[in-house]
Amino acid sequence: MPPLDYKQAGVDYAKIDPLKVLAQRAAAGTAGNLARHGLAEVPASRGESAYVVDCGEFYLASITECLGTKALVADSMRAITGKTYYDLIAQDTLAMAINDLITVGATPVSVHAYWAASGSDWFDDAARACDLVAGWQAACDACGVSWGGGETPALAGVVADGRVDLAASCVGLIRPKSRLTLGEKLSAGDAIVLIESSGIHANGISLARKLAERLPDGYATRLEDGSLYGEALLAPTLLYANLTEALAAAGIVPHYAANVTGHGWRKLMRHPGAFTYRLHTLPPVPPVLRFIQRQAGLSDAEAYGTFNMGAGFALYLAAQDAAPTIEVARAQGLLAWHAGRVEQGVRQVAIEPLAATFGSEQLTVRL
Amino acid sequence: MPPLDYKQAGVDYAKIDPLKVLAQRAAAGTAGNLARHGLAEVPASRGESAYVVDCGEFYLASITECLGTKALVADSMRAITGKTYYDLIAQDTLAMAINDLITVGATPVSVHAYWAASGSDWFDDAARACDLVAGWQAACDACGVSWGGGETPALAGVVADGRVDLAASCVGLIRPKSRLTLGEKLSAGDAIVLIESSGIHANGISLARKLAERLPDGYATRLEDGSLYGEALLAPTLLYANLTEALAAAGIVPHYAANVTGHGWRKLMRHPGAFTYRLHTLPPVPPVLRFIQRQAGLSDAEAYGTFNMGAGFALYLAAQDAAPTIEVARAQGLLAWHAGRVEQGVRQVAIEPLAATFGSEQLTVRL
Repeated sequence: MPPLDYKQAGVDYAKIDPLKVLAQRAAAGTAGNLARHGLAEVPASRGESAYVVDCGEFYLASITECLGTKALVADSMRAITGKTYYDLIAQDTLAMAINDLITVGATPVSVHAYWAASGSDWFDDAARACDLVAGWQAACDACGVSWGGGETPALAGVVADGRVDLAASCVGLIRPKSRLTLGEKLSAGDAIVLIESSGIHANGISLARKLAERLPDGYATRLEDGSLYGEALLAPTLLYANLTEALAAAGIVPHYAANVTGHGWRKLMRHPGAFTYRLHTLPPVPPVLRFIQRQAGLSDAEAYGTFNMGAGFALYLAAQDAAPTIEVARAQGLLAWHAGRVEQGVRQVAIEPLAATFGSEQLTVRL
Repeated sequence: MPPLDYKQAGVDYAKIDPLKVLAQRAAAGTAGNLARHGLAEVPASRGESAYVVDCGEFYLASITECLGTKALVADSMRAITGKTYYDLIAQDTLAMAINDLITVGATPVSVHAYWAASGSDWFDDAARACDLVAGWQAACDACGVSWGGGETPALAGVVADGRVDLAASCVGLIRPKSRLTLGEKLSAGDAIVLIESSGIHANGISLARKLAERLPDGYATRLEDGSLYGEALLAPTLLYANLTEALAAAGIVPHYAANVTGHGWRKLMRHPGAFTYRLHTLPPVPPVLRFIQRQAGLSDAEAYGTFNMGAGFALYLAAQDAAPTIEVARAQGLLAWHAGRVEQGVRQVAIEPLAATFGSEQLTVRL
């Protein structure tokens, strides 16, 4: 069978990008409104994972993110095992927002839930409702954020029948202001520390779903370790907020941070600077991602350019901070690797063990 | 034909409420997490329109809201007139979030857009994309907020074919802290000032859509003033942020504020206290709402208990502040009426000119 790619999986960025460019330009044009209130945006936060406003004594950070289509995997798996998995995808949804917010150095403070369902009936499933609520609360507790409220609309005709659109917004504070991490200090010689992922997290799901359609047993296909493909996909995204808080408590301020989400390791060159990110060490690849790569017929470059391949979060630090950062991560129960270094040079990601390189043109997050 | 009610229109709150109660309890249970960061929630904000955190020198307010199903009206009207109307529903979406945020006394600072579409193709419609972006920017400019970013996912299988799920999150600051408006000062003798609406805004849309199905000409039905029913529905929600900012600048701090959204005038008793809200003056009813009431066969109580009926926002103020508030509103281009007073008594809304009363049991926004 021919290899799968993301366009086949139904997401064609060429069709979305013109609107994104329009929106980014228009959004940038509204920054001046803050002057009315004696505030100013931090321009370097445009194009980063969270938006940052300078409020004088502190910075305010905010983000809204969605789960994507991972709920469809949960729905399919429920038919197989009877479990709802909505506790797990609740954590995924919060992780999408919180793991983005912390990249700028913010302490996440509060979140809002956005659970838009196809109709009132969707909410009337007690097992699923309990799991969703319990998982959401547990993830808030794990990250030290307050769940401030949310929206549970019934949107027949907007949300597909029997489905739910899950999203989260998160607000945070950067206090003291010296914790701001927007990459100004990123320098040649910095260490790249990669933090483990738990599996696919919530990015690359469309391709993973497309693959399930190809497998004779679909989501019930067993991986080498005996787990079901669908269940392995549903391992919840790791939460990295305790790590970034612990680093701050240890006096370690990263020079930059990247949440490894859509576009996989191409996200490692999210920073706009002229740097080459040279990776010499690869984290172990989660079995479910190894399985997808093999079954979908993806080259290493395609796999690492799409999935996190075992690295869920990246920290860029002064070289001497790499070892203590790995210790802090371990104390938080997270494996971490001093996996590479930042070099002056063309903007690219060079993965030496795979002889693979992603050029600057393969990641556009700014105008 | 029998009168229409909201359950017939497809929204059955009895099915949604158990999950909402579960979620509200769980959310309240996460408040203690803020202590980790030296912060504390303002408990009175639970059940209010925006969540408020005490950050020491200031309060932080946040909210996430969605448009609901009004985009379906825009999509139908496009087939009739060729216009997209997405500039208008962009304003509606932002109004849902911003008009809620300002009720607690917050200055809106930044917003995030959430535009989840059924697939990449949705974004590839240049006219609609331009309108959506232009309307979003214009509404941000009108409210003095910065558009910080957003999410434009393509969610085939989650969002219904050809549709978009529009939502917005908004973050604000309450500075000085004396601007906090959570109702502690609400007292018998306070004046109720109602601010005009532009029409249906974005609440009660499911019923309005159901009505269109009954009309021989549907959305193309002409109102008495000659406008098309569908186009009248699409009059964008008024934005009240400049009014609340102007009041603050004038030294007027309301005792309480309510955004008149779902449940119409029942929202006038949003405050948990034992007060009777006695209305003696009714704003003129927008023609489109008068039309819906008549065509759907709604009693006055049903109409005022569902729609805003001309009052989009309510302010509760010390009696001597009513007249200057109406002046400030007029200077912002908004009609306002000293429409009633707060009395000690059973929690209810009494609309004297209609001899209609909503009892406490007809609005549940808290556990």
